[in-house]
This record gives sequence, structure tokens and C-alpha cells, in this order.
Amino acid sequence: MKKPKVVILGGGFAGIECAKVFQKKDVEVLLIDRQNHHLFQPLLYQVASAGLAAPEIAHPIRSIFANQDNVTVLMKEVTGIDLASKEVQLGEETVDYDYIVLAMGVKTGYFGNDQWASVARGLKTLDDATAMRRDLLLAFETAESCDDPGERERLMTIGVIGGGPTGVELAGAFAELVRHVLQRDFKNIDTEKAKIYLIEAAPRLLTMYDEDLSEYTRKSLEEMGVTVLLDQPVKDLQESRIILEDQVIEAENIVWGAGVEAPALTRELGVETDRGGRIHVETDLSIPGHPEAFVAGDLAHCIDQSGVRVPGLCPSAMQMGKHAAAVILDEIEGKNSEKYPVRRQFRYFDKGSMATIGRSRAVAESMGMKFDGFLAWLMWLFIHLLFLVGFRNRLAVLMQWFYAYVRYRRGARIITGFHREMPSAVR
Amino acid sequence: MKKPKVVILGGGFAGIECAKVFQKKDVEVLLIDRQNHHLFQPLLYQVASAGLAAPEIAHPIRSIFANQDNVTVLMKEVTGIDLASKEVQLGEETVDYDYIVLAMGVKTGYFGNDQWASVARGLKTLDDATAMRRDLLLAFETAESCDDPGERERLMTIGVIGGGPTGVELAGAFAELVRHVLQRDFKNIDTEKAKIYLIEAAPRLLTMYDEDLSEYTRKSLEEMGVTVLLDQPVKDLQESRIILEDQVIEAENIVWGAGVEAPALTRELGVETDRGGRIHVETDLSIPGHPEAFVAGDLAHCIDQSGVRVPGLCPSAMQMGKHAAAVILDEIEGKNSEKYPVRRQFRYFDKGSMATIGRSRAVAESMGMKFDGFLAWLMWLFIHLLFLVGFRNRLAVLMQWFYAYVRYRRGARIITGFHREMPSAVR
Repeated sequence: MKKPKVVILGGGFAGIECAKVFQKKDVEVLLIDRQNHHLFQPLLYQVASAGLAAPEIAHPIRSIFANQDNVTVLMKEVTGIDLASKEVQLGEETVDYDYIVLAMGVKTGYFGNDQWASVARGLKTLDDATAMRRDLLLAFETAESCDDPGERERLMTIGVIGGGPTGVELAGAFAELVRHVLQRDFKNIDTEKAKIYLIEAAPRLLTMYDEDLSEYTRKSLEEMGVTVLLDQPVKDLQESRIILEDQVIEAENIVWGAGVEAPALTRELGVETDRGGRIHVETDLSIPGHPEAFVAGDLAHCIDQSGVRVPGLCPSAMQMGKHAAAVILDEIEGKNSEKYPVRRQFRYFDKGSMATIGRSRAVAESMGMKFDGFLAWLMWLFIHLLFLVGFRNRLAVLMQWFYAYVRYRRGARIITGFHREMPSAVR
Repeated sequence: MKKPKVVILGGGFAGIECAKVFQKKDVEVLLIDRQNHHLFQPLLYQVASAGLAAPEIAHPIRSIFANQDNVTVLMKEVTGIDLASKEVQLGEETVDYDYIVLAMGVKTGYFGNDQWASVARGLKTLDDATAMRRDLLLAFETAESCDDPGERERLMTIGVIGGGPTGVELAGAFAELVRHVLQRDFKNIDTEKAKIYLIEAAPRLLTMYDEDLSEYTRKSLEEMGVTVLLDQPVKDLQESRIILEDQVIEAENIVWGAGVEAPALTRELGVETDRGGRIHVETDLSIPGHPEAFVAGDLAHCIDQSGVRVPGLCPSAMQMGKHAAAVILDEIEGKNSEKYPVRRQFRYFDKGSMATIGRSRAVAESMGMKFDGFLAWLMWLFIHLLFLVGFRNRLAVLMQWFYAYVRYRRGARIITGFHREMPSAVR
């Protein structure tokens, strides 16, 4: 008898955890991702701010499943999904499935202002992060030999759009990079005069957290030299210009941490999605009307069994990935009728959430408690360490990172990929 | 009185060592490089073969001179040098000098066959190395899902042109990557069947070494699975095709380690150069007729005081950089007439040279002695460690590297920079 075939789209936290559940099960798993690596997204901002090298937070997907024989990894771009005929299109190739798990995650989204993409880079991939690092360092290099004070000020200004965790972490890391690391490197310019703006449309930062933590975050960032602008929706973005209600900020570097959206592909599925394109799922994580198709991770718009809207975080993605796999296994192994008269329902276990602001400053909420300052930062460090388990050489990464934190060094402030154009022979 | 102004072009081994000599001297030093980082070139092949991350072998030039107040670092492209008017052109900007040291090194050269550049990548910059790594890994990804046996073979073939140190190190590192690291990652293809060709026009590898070592190198590489072709000049290179006298090799990846040449700029200087564009210098390293202009490092064609042709190696570059600075200082400090009736002459101190073949195999020659095998490899490891002193976090690098060697892991096998095109806003 042919083994049931499970196709998993995406090698992020949801897809990886999902595939792992099938270890030693009588199932054929095909994991498709357009990158060859799993990315430790929570530390991506460290690559963007020259704290870590790109390979240190990425891991080849193949090697994660090197010892799991029933998983085949394919580095391909998904070009279409046909839920009716149960087929996935990979360019000219077609793959069929018995079960599918959509775990492609979300990408940077500009609320319909796609022209902003060329002006304000988002932070979702390693290439985003290294490009962000390069552009930032190049701006200071240019400023170092610039005689025009106005131009120099523009070059030394960074605008961060969006006061969520990504924006807060980037603004904090940039402030440390500029004031403590670059300050030693440059002699003509005074990098302490560099301006970093954090711009948020809402009245406070980190709106998903308690108000006290938002306030702590704002104060901390301001102490670190970040100009926090609240209640300031972005009217328009142009090359090096952020247009707000009543002011225009001239900034060589503008980065975008304000929004994400589902990949365009999901809009062609003919299923119900929310405004960001996330797919509405049943409480078992299946797509309504398609019991063989599941969504896990950031791409799912999920209200769990207890009525909670599941947030787009790593722990929830991992939990959803595991859950989808468990439901599929129940069905394959015929357990549904006995053990679970109906399919098991997803229940999000909220371990809490946290964001770093800078060296020894963070905010965290967990189990109804809130933390800030050094304690929260220690928690953040500890939890990210635990996460890094399974990653290559976590000790070396930790050492570098610790060294960088303690001594305000950023070893990775290397500019690459701008002299030579991308080779035309890229395949 | 205005301080004498020394302009150093290039932040490689020669330029860095040269600038360091002026520490605390009453001199104004301007160091210009088009990259922001000094590169530890001897380990570049490790980045290309996914053993190390790019930032691990690069160091920001600015931070090397953070505490040397009289050095100004400029990240600019030199567009012209006028020896007569003592001026350097940086695009629209002009910089004058009292003394100049040309230490720009050499670039990949194709013996006049510049069309080969698009087919066979050289290895001189970090971008070269990461692109090489990407193309190599992508070829195996494509092979993994390829049904055509001939096409699969082509995808899994790597041609290395040139049997000098670069070619030998690359071929050895690729063989280990493919046979020991990737072999665990891929399930459809048998990476042990990958073919690696090392192609050399001369009758032996590493022609600058003793014949015994050449032979040891050939045997070692063949044991590691590399096909060594000697006496085989390349007739032509086309996209994925290496055309030799009596055979054509179809290889998705072709890399070039066969030659280097001086940057085009030096041909416009109106000075005497050798076939590779290297500048003939006096034994004090100055350019004939231009006592205020010096050449140091790979760009110099130098016969030293004892009649030895100085080789293009790191130690010689460092020695030449220091020597040029010393001659300049003698003159500035008025020492020439007393201490040295004529300028001091450069004498190359040959510490020996070495090349790694793979894990625990290397060849070395020093002080008239020759070494191979494990002992040579230990020497190589030790000397590169010493060199790494001054580099950030050498302990972490060593750990990763050691770990990779011992366990045949390559943590950096990450494909980046091919989905997103280079942003148009690159400055």
C-alpha cells in the first residue's frame, strides 16, 4: 500500500516542528522551502545591526532531517496550490499530496503601499538583514568624508517605522551600534550625533504588552538616544524621506517593521482570509471545507479552543506545527474514532512574550506577570539560548554575542555585496 | 609646519602594516580602500567551502586604527593616480600627497581572456567567496530534484582551474565538503559521486614547491577523490564547459585559481610593469624616478637586496609594507644621511610557505626543509592562529573551525543573495 504523503510548505518553526512529529511514522513527508536554511528569526535583528554573522543564525534544513529518513527536502519556489485537485505547483513540476500543511509564514507588508518597498527595507530574510547592515555602514562611510553638514546629518539619520517588537529591537540595536561601536571607528564624524527615529502610529510602543512596559520601553530607548515619535502615522515614504502629519524626516536609511502580510499565493486559494491575507482556520487548524489541508504558523488566522487569537510568535508556530501533524497522524492511524471522537482542537499555550531593547534591557510578559530591565533581559537571554539548542555551535555564538554585549563590539560590521553585481548566471 | 602626508592605497596586509609603523609619528596618514574591511585572505577558501562565515575572516579597517590618531581611513574607489603632480583621484575628489604607498594588491586575472570571468569565478573578495559557496550549494540542490542522469552529473561536477595554492586548497576543501558534509544532507543524490577536477597546465601541482611535495599533494588529493589533470592547458572556457586539448569537461561550477593581475589603474601610471601589470621597483621599494612613491605587497615586482624575487605571499606583503614606511620615516626624520648613507634596501626574510590540502594534510617548506602530512598541517594551523591574533574573537573562530574539521561539519552552508536582486539604491 502506498504511504500517505504529507507535503509541508515552509521550513520555518511551524514546518520544522510539524515534520519532526512524523519521525519513524509510516508517512512520506515532503518539505518544500525556497531557501535552503531554517532561520532563527528572533535574532535576525542582530545580523542587521552587525552583532552576528548571517550563518550563525541559520541552519541548513537538510541537516535537521539528515537522520529522519521519511523526510525529503526540496529547495523550490511554490508557484501555485490547488486545494481541489490536491496538487502543488513548483514551476513546471507538479506534486500531489494526501495532506498539506501551509507554513510559509508571512512577508513584509506595506498596507497596500507596495512602492514603499524600494524605500524602506523590511526584515524577514538573511538577505534583508545583510543588506540592511551594508546600507547602514555605507551611510556612515559616506558621512565620514562628506563636507556638507546637512547632507552629513541626513546620512547619519535612521528612520525605523513601526513600534512593535521588530522596530523596538532594531532601534535599540542601531542606537548601541552607532553610539558605542561605530563611535570608536570614525574620526571625522561624531556618531553620537546620529539620529535614530522610531515612528509609531499608535499612542504607545509594543501595543500588545501592558502599558507600563510600553512606557518603560519608550523611556529606555530615549535614554539610549532614540527619538520616539508616537501617534505619528506615516503619510508617505519617498527615497530618504519620511513624511509624517506635520514634519518630514530626511533619513538615508529607512527600515520597515510596521507590518507583514501573507504571500500573494494564498490570495489565489479561494479561501477566507483576513485583511493581511492570513487564512482563517478551524480550531483543528484545517481550512474550512478542506479537512486534509492545514495552516500553521504566522500564515494562520486562528482562534483557538479557548477563544484566544493565536499570536504570530515562534512558540505558537511550533505548537501549531506539532498540532497539525498530530491531527494528520490520528487520522492516518485511525485513532480519530476511538481516542478522539472529533479531531483534537488546538489550544495555544501562552508561555509569554518578550522583546529586547538593548544590552541588559528587555520587557517580558508571562503567565500574567510582567518584567522589565535586567531580569527581563536575563530571561530573554536564557530563553533564546534554549532555542538555540540544536543550532550549530551555539557555544561559539553565545561567546561572540556575550563578548559583543559586554564590550560593545560588533564584529560583523562588514560591508559585502555591493561592488560586484549579482552574477547573471545565478540559478 | 605642515605635517608630511602619506597616502596608502589598500588595506591589505601591506597597507595595514605600513600604516601601523607611523604610530605616534609626526605624520598624517590617509589609508584608502574600496572595502571597509581588511581580509584574512589565506582563509578565504574556507568561506567559499562553507567552513567559516564571511565576517569571521574580515575585520573593519577603521577599528584596526581606532587608537592610532594620525591615520584617517577612507572607503573610496581610487580612479586615478598622477605620479607627476602627486595626486590621487577618487572620483571627483582629489587628494594630494608627499609620499604614496601603492598596496592595492592584485585581482583575478584571465591572461587576456576576460570573457572567462563570467564563467569561472576567481577568489579574491568576500563576495567572491559567498557567491562561490552559493553557486556550489545551489547546484547540489538542483541535482537533488533532477531526473536526468547526464544533467545531474554535470550539476555535481566542479572544475578547479589552476594547481597553485588556491586551486589545491579549494579542490581539497570542496572534496571534503561534498563527500563528508553534503553527503549527510542529501538523500536522492549520492554526493560521493560528485566529480571534482583540478586542472593544471604545468606537469605538476604547486610548482613553487619541491617536487616531492607536489607529488604528495597530487596523491593526497586523489585519495580524497579529486581528479588531478596535469599538463592540461585550458583551451577555452564556456558556460559550464571546460575545453582541454583532448577532452571537454561539463561542470556546473567552474572556479578560477590560475592567475592574478594588477588592477587596470596601474597600467595608466606610465611606469615599467611586468606581464601581470606588477610594478618594477627599486630595492628600496620605490618606483624608479619617483623616490616619494612606493609599491608594497602583491602589486610590486621586486628583486630584493640579495637578488631574490619576492613572492606574492602574506609575510612578504607585511615585510614590504613595513619597509616602505621605514624608508619614508628615515627621510622625514632626516636619518638618511647619518644612519643610512643610502636608503635602506629591502631584504625578504623567507619564513617559508605552506598550503593545506585538507583535514590534517598540508605541505610546507621553510628554511630549506620540507614537510608534509599531519606535521605540516599542525604547522599551518599554528601559524594561521598566530596570524589571527588581532582578529576579533579568534578563540570562537578557532573553536568553530576545529569543530568543523574534527566532525566534518560546515555550519556556513547557507545560500544567500539570490532571491532578491541587489537593491537599486545601493550606494
